[in-house]
Amino acid sequence: MDGRRRVVIEGIKPEIDGGLFPIKRTVGEKVRVEADVFADGHDAVRCQLLYRKKGQTEWTLTQMSHVVNDRWEGMFYVTELGTYEYTVQAWVDKFLSWHHGIVKKIPAAQDSSVDFLVGANLLESVLENASASDQILLKAWAAALRSNQLDQMRQCALDEQLVLTMLKYPSPSPVSVYHRTLNVHVDREKARFSAWYELFPRSCAAEVGRHGTFKDCEARLPYVAGMGFDVLYLPPIHPIGRTHRKGRNNSVTPTPDDPGSPWAIGSEEGGHKAIHSDLGTLEDFRSLVRKAGELGLEVALDLAYQCTPDHPYVKSHPEWFRRRPDGTIQYAENPPKKYQDIYPIDFETEKWSQLWEELKSVVLFWMDQGVKIFRVDNPHTKAFLFWEWLIAEIHKVDPEVIFLSEAFTRPKVMYRLAKLGFTQSYTYFAWRNTKWELTEYFQELTQGEVREYFRPNLWPNTPDILTEYLQIGGRPAFMSRLVLAATLGPNYGIYGPAFELCENRPLVRGKEEYLDSEKYEIRHWDLARPDSLRDLIARINSIRKSNPALQSNDRLVFLPVDNEQLIAHAKTTEDLSNVILVVVNLDCHYKQSGWIDLPLAKLGLEADHPFQVHDLLTDARYFWHGSRNYIELNPHVLPAHILRVRRRVRTEQDFDYFM
Amino acid sequence: MDGRRRVVIEGIKPEIDGGLFPIKRTVGEKVRVEADVFADGHDAVRCQLLYRKKGQTEWTLTQMSHVVNDRWEGMFYVTELGTYEYTVQAWVDKFLSWHHGIVKKIPAAQDSSVDFLVGANLLESVLENASASDQILLKAWAAALRSNQLDQMRQCALDEQLVLTMLKYPSPSPVSVYHRTLNVHVDREKARFSAWYELFPRSCAAEVGRHGTFKDCEARLPYVAGMGFDVLYLPPIHPIGRTHRKGRNNSVTPTPDDPGSPWAIGSEEGGHKAIHSDLGTLEDFRSLVRKAGELGLEVALDLAYQCTPDHPYVKSHPEWFRRRPDGTIQYAENPPKKYQDIYPIDFETEKWSQLWEELKSVVLFWMDQGVKIFRVDNPHTKAFLFWEWLIAEIHKVDPEVIFLSEAFTRPKVMYRLAKLGFTQSYTYFAWRNTKWELTEYFQELTQGEVREYFRPNLWPNTPDILTEYLQIGGRPAFMSRLVLAATLGPNYGIYGPAFELCENRPLVRGKEEYLDSEKYEIRHWDLARPDSLRDLIARINSIRKSNPALQSNDRLVFLPVDNEQLIAHAKTTEDLSNVILVVVNLDCHYKQSGWIDLPLAKLGLEADHPFQVHDLLTDARYFWHGSRNYIELNPHVLPAHILRVRRRVRTEQDFDYFM
Repeated sequence: MDGRRRVVIEGIKPEIDGGLFPIKRTVGEKVRVEADVFADGHDAVRCQLLYRKKGQTEWTLTQMSHVVNDRWEGMFYVTELGTYEYTVQAWVDKFLSWHHGIVKKIPAAQDSSVDFLVGANLLESVLENASASDQILLKAWAAALRSNQLDQMRQCALDEQLVLTMLKYPSPSPVSVYHRTLNVHVDREKARFSAWYELFPRSCAAEVGRHGTFKDCEARLPYVAGMGFDVLYLPPIHPIGRTHRKGRNNSVTPTPDDPGSPWAIGSEEGGHKAIHSDLGTLEDFRSLVRKAGELGLEVALDLAYQCTPDHPYVKSHPEWFRRRPDGTIQYAENPPKKYQDIYPIDFETEKWSQLWEELKSVVLFWMDQGVKIFRVDNPHTKAFLFWEWLIAEIHKVDPEVIFLSEAFTRPKVMYRLAKLGFTQSYTYFAWRNTKWELTEYFQELTQGEVREYFRPNLWPNTPDILTEYLQIGGRPAFMSRLVLAATLGPNYGIYGPAFELCENRPLVRGKEEYLDSEKYEIRHWDLARPDSLRDLIARINSIRKSNPALQSNDRLVFLPVDNEQLIAHAKTTEDLSNVILVVVNLDCHYKQSGWIDLPLAKLGLEADHPFQVHDLLTDARYFWHGSRNYIELNPHVLPAHILRVRRRVRTEQDFDYFM
Repeated sequence: MDGRRRVVIEGIKPEIDGGLFPIKRTVGEKVRVEADVFADGHDAVRCQLLYRKKGQTEWTLTQMSHVVNDRWEGMFYVTELGTYEYTVQAWVDKFLSWHHGIVKKIPAAQDSSVDFLVGANLLESVLENASASDQILLKAWAAALRSNQLDQMRQCALDEQLVLTMLKYPSPSPVSVYHRTLNVHVDREKARFSAWYELFPRSCAAEVGRHGTFKDCEARLPYVAGMGFDVLYLPPIHPIGRTHRKGRNNSVTPTPDDPGSPWAIGSEEGGHKAIHSDLGTLEDFRSLVRKAGELGLEVALDLAYQCTPDHPYVKSHPEWFRRRPDGTIQYAENPPKKYQDIYPIDFETEKWSQLWEELKSVVLFWMDQGVKIFRVDNPHTKAFLFWEWLIAEIHKVDPEVIFLSEAFTRPKVMYRLAKLGFTQSYTYFAWRNTKWELTEYFQELTQGEVREYFRPNLWPNTPDILTEYLQIGGRPAFMSRLVLAATLGPNYGIYGPAFELCENRPLVRGKEEYLDSEKYEIRHWDLARPDSLRDLIARINSIRKSNPALQSNDRLVFLPVDNEQLIAHAKTTEDLSNVILVVVNLDCHYKQSGWIDLPLAKLGLEADHPFQVHDLLTDARYFWHGSRNYIELNPHVLPAHILRVRRRVRTEQDFDYFM
């Protein structure tokens, strides 16, 4: 130990659970690091942020600067996929300490020759590290400081160039290094910015009643791509079990024709690496992945680690299932609910290690077919340690793989799954309807520490979730929830065509299951219906693509509106070159109006200059002036504005003759 | 690694800087620990808090209980000086999970024999760990569960005694243990609750003009003890340097008679282990320590690691001082201020290790003379690593030693010194005068994480600090600041007799130095002055001793009063057996009145019962009813109430004939 290290480094942010987990970024993003850094006494401290790609031995150093109250900040960009490391180092800088003193002594006429000699010594102590040209400068300055000519010594000490040069060559001094190295996990851009579309391939047939195939799904691709989505997520595509198969509307008395739930995985035909024969072949699937890619759509598969009683694992690996004293396998239950068609995998099995390897091989198998995105079904009902291991293992093979966590459960469980490695996560968005609920929740997601590792993916509906808001609000509700999902976060998704066709008939009023749910039957959708939201969706996805403010989870600000039914938020790029204001009428029935309060400075606006807001949904333009502006939204026409702020409003002074 | 561990443990509180520093407690205090604990799925989790005295190999286990939102809590008491360790462990409990299921299945009539067989197996799996009597019970229950008689099986499964018995014998299951062991530093009670009195022994002579001695100081002991203090803190008692000695009122042109500042330590007569010859001998000092002890007063010494040019270290250890190019030693300076009478010790010396040992030997020397409390002068101008080492080393020798940090500097520096080991710390209290300032600051000190390691010691004045509030406010200000210091925190101190005699003449208006400061001259105080606050101080210290609510830094609550000049706070014991309300008039000139709002439930009061508040300062009693009550305080009489709440107000129903 070197007892001469005088600088303390603490309170580093971001740092998740004392460095146990990495923060997350995508390629090209910035990492801003803060730390409390201070020394005893009043000597000058210098502080550097160190970072490197994991595996490199050399650190890159960047200067940190003092903000206030011993808080320092620095930043770096991550430019490659994988893991980066960062930490902070600092030291008492002898030259700067001397310089701070002498610039105070000179005006007080307290400077004496010996003070300048101290400076000369410091200059000479770094000579050997200096570049040839700097050596010449430093020698000249040292000579001036030794000249014993007060004017010359003072002039030299006050020379800004001297300080800038000396900053390059820290005076040798014991350096304190923060006691932990922290990690950044860097994903590809789609981890941060994506638009998902979920559909059931078996409902894609052109003719009513036929089981759709991957070929039918291929024919649907232009429709999906045309709406501007970039991820096509398919529910499980594997053979469906026969034992205890569910019928229409979740009935336990199916007819022989009922196709069953895709999540009831496994039959005699195969398990998690097999394809349901009615959908086509593995080659058909590969073709779908390829064709989708040509249209800018990546296929995401569902990773649902559970088995029907007919799954091959049940015979080949009975040790992966928990048996009861009567020899039967314990089906899934959450008493008094029973799921006799599902055998949960027993993660407490003695053979956990072989189990983990097999489950990993499932992911690798589909990666071999070109899949790089997995939507993980109910990860919170499988072991945390397994996911942490699996995701790390897969990222060793391909760091581009994205895992979306479908954990609708308690908040700390959801956050833990994100910390341990899930790329994106479903959220409570579907159930946040009022202004207060939305504001509270999105402030938690975007302003707390969770934003460093939890990437929300906002879904207004899923095959399991038809919210009461959509049931009651109808088409205006679908429109307003769409705008909220697509603008409150950079990642969002819809379950279609139910969504664009505003499917809102519940099985039972007050519950969230769909009537005639696609989970249990093949549906035929009339995509050409005139009331489809298809064009609105296309418009919104296009707006998202051309406005970088909407492509990041940073800088979300809620704006005051004097009407509880109107919610307004702003998103901006860091340089304010792109400023988007979104206003949504949460009332699905009545026109609402109110006054919005803009934080002008935060949006790069001046109080005394008019500005234009351009509604990217309708192409209407409004001239606004000052912070308070009027909003009126009719839900039966369009319950939202997505306004791009354009700062420049032309005036007569723009004409040549005014120059 | 055991991949079957399914429980996550995170977010433990208290945990300082990821476990880098211990929390602090005193003997007999409670440690309340919280953690987020959860497993995948919906199995039942059990959670235990583990603790032990450091050095023991066995942990003591206590149950933690679920609060809300996956948050668990548990507690233990520390009963010995030194260091305790704690951590948390948890597991998925098979029996409890089964029990949670069966109690839901039974009312739904979904229970089947096999369910009860599962239970029987679980009972039998813990048989070998069970006590003989529990074995009998468990065997009987297992038989009942195997009976295949539905009534009998159900009755057994619902037997509360079964659950209580099984809780004693956790079903074997992989256990997750939190990845860190956290520490508690346990001090003696005085670290938590103390009243300090600072005086200059050289001003204790009975006759005007004579240099006081330890003998004179002995004569002063009954006066100090009579006011109820328990720590007598002496400024440095060492030989004072001659070179650049300061004269009266900090003059740089002293007369030969000027005694100099006690903080200018070291002369040819000796340094930090020597005694100023005018004060007496080492034996006199020992006698003072002994006599003080007999009166319940512990002597605290000043630890000021700095040297005058005449200090023996300057000759014997020139390498401990930084030399300038002209061979002179760099005196202390904070340009443009110069302190030519002080040579700072160079903690960056190559010989830091020998230096540390010598400085440690100073502490050990005075410990040998019976001193166990050190007030450390300006610790923030010496190396942090040194203090961390020194305090740990001393506590190895004697864990009773108390170090008070006199660091009036930036907040993070003060908090770091507390984290690294200082027992108590000076605060910004002296400069917090308005209701808002006091409220904000004391909420930070008592409700944030700092309360786990930073023990405030509140001083309304010191020899360096005569606040503007005291200068302007005069005697009422001294009274109100006294009450605030003595009740806002369990540790406080005054610099006397300047304080009780309301000395408030500044050297320069607008600065904080005293006119005719005792730092530079011998003062003679007229202790018998009729306006002395001596009796008030005695009363307040007596109130502190008999009211445990005032002996802890926990449970401070500010109460709303509808007058900005009145500040009110409550302190309570955890069981509410002692409830103290303090109201202070911050206006030193005018009578102020207002209505105070009491949080009745928090204070153990009922809205519909009158209660009595007993002013412990004046012995007056008031009958109050409900939450809003009237307060009026005249600063020229007494600017404060210290009210003890007495819940019981006698009524006619207390008479026998009402029974």
